[in-house]
Amino acid sequence: MRILGIDCGAERTGYGVIESDGRAHRLVDWGVVRTRPADPLSTRLQAIAEALRAVIARNAPAAAAVEEVFYAANVKTALKLAHVRGVALLAVAEAGLPCAEYSALAIKTAVVGYGRAEKRQVQMMVASVLGLEAPLASEDASDALAVAICHATTAATRRRVQASRMEVLR
Amino acid sequence: MRILGIDCGAERTGYGVIESDGRAHRLVDWGVVRTRPADPLSTRLQAIAEALRAVIARNAPAAAAVEEVFYAANVKTALKLAHVRGVALLAVAEAGLPCAEYSALAIKTAVVGYGRAEKRQVQMMVASVLGLEAPLASEDASDALAVAICHATTAATRRRVQASRMEVLR
Repeated sequence: MRILGIDCGAERTGYGVIESDGRAHRLVDWGVVRTRPADPLSTRLQAIAEALRAVIARNAPAAAAVEEVFYAANVKTALKLAHVRGVALLAVAEAGLPCAEYSALAIKTAVVGYGRAEKRQVQMMVASVLGLEAPLASEDASDALAVAICHATTAATRRRVQASRMEVLR
Repeated sequence: MRILGIDCGAERTGYGVIESDGRAHRLVDWGVVRTRPADPLSTRLQAIAEALRAVIARNAPAAAAVEEVFYAANVKTALKLAHVRGVALLAVAEAGLPCAEYSALAIKTAVVGYGRAEKRQVQMMVASVLGLEAPLASEDASDALAVAICHATTAATRRRVQASRMEVLR
């Protein structure tokens, strides 16, 4: 199954697409949508929406996953991020994709096996799981891939992958 | 000039369209987009985006205005609202409309003449300014019209209306 992970941010929104059977994962596409802080938020949202639509059209994922909003740190930043997240959820919904949401804790636990893992550890494990020689240059794309891997390894997704296999066998 | 005001909310998003020369204002369209709390946020965002696109297509406004996010009260509610706001800003930007943002204080000052006016006073003044016999049944639509009236009465908008008139006269 092909899964799109999105790591929302007002300045940089990372995305990553993997192909997964629930156990083995392969990197398909990744990148970062950068927007200029000087531009109005609406212009930046438009750029992010367009880029995500293009990513979806190009890769045809069967599902998407995003991180839940975390707002303990900075409410202003969280509010800006929520605008971007709204646009990302819209792009995913308009493409007809189911969208799962995971907490940072769940993502780190799924990828590293430890909910309080450091950013660097997540990047290393994402690279390792995808069989890359080195971590991706972009931390945002790496985070997006971590969300996709988290979704791929949840029990529910595994069942779905197996169910679709059974249908192929029938 | 035709102005679209939007009052964002996860459960109810109000909209109001007025025709204004900066002094006199006429009600053109208003309504509320209701979404079901039981539905996933992405489904609700999709419904709001579709409705706002239809409102824009139907009324062809020249500008839009929304309220700034206010988050002192409840961060969770503000975050949900920010998702909706992101989608609203996107719909407006993709229609090629300039979008102005005003604080609650600025809106109340513009409509009632008093920044700490009660909700009910705003509703009464919106009705009065638009020459309606009674306040609108929907508080959300009324709030959306208040944003539109605020935008219509700002100095910058007045100048723009006058400039477009001059061009017509030339």
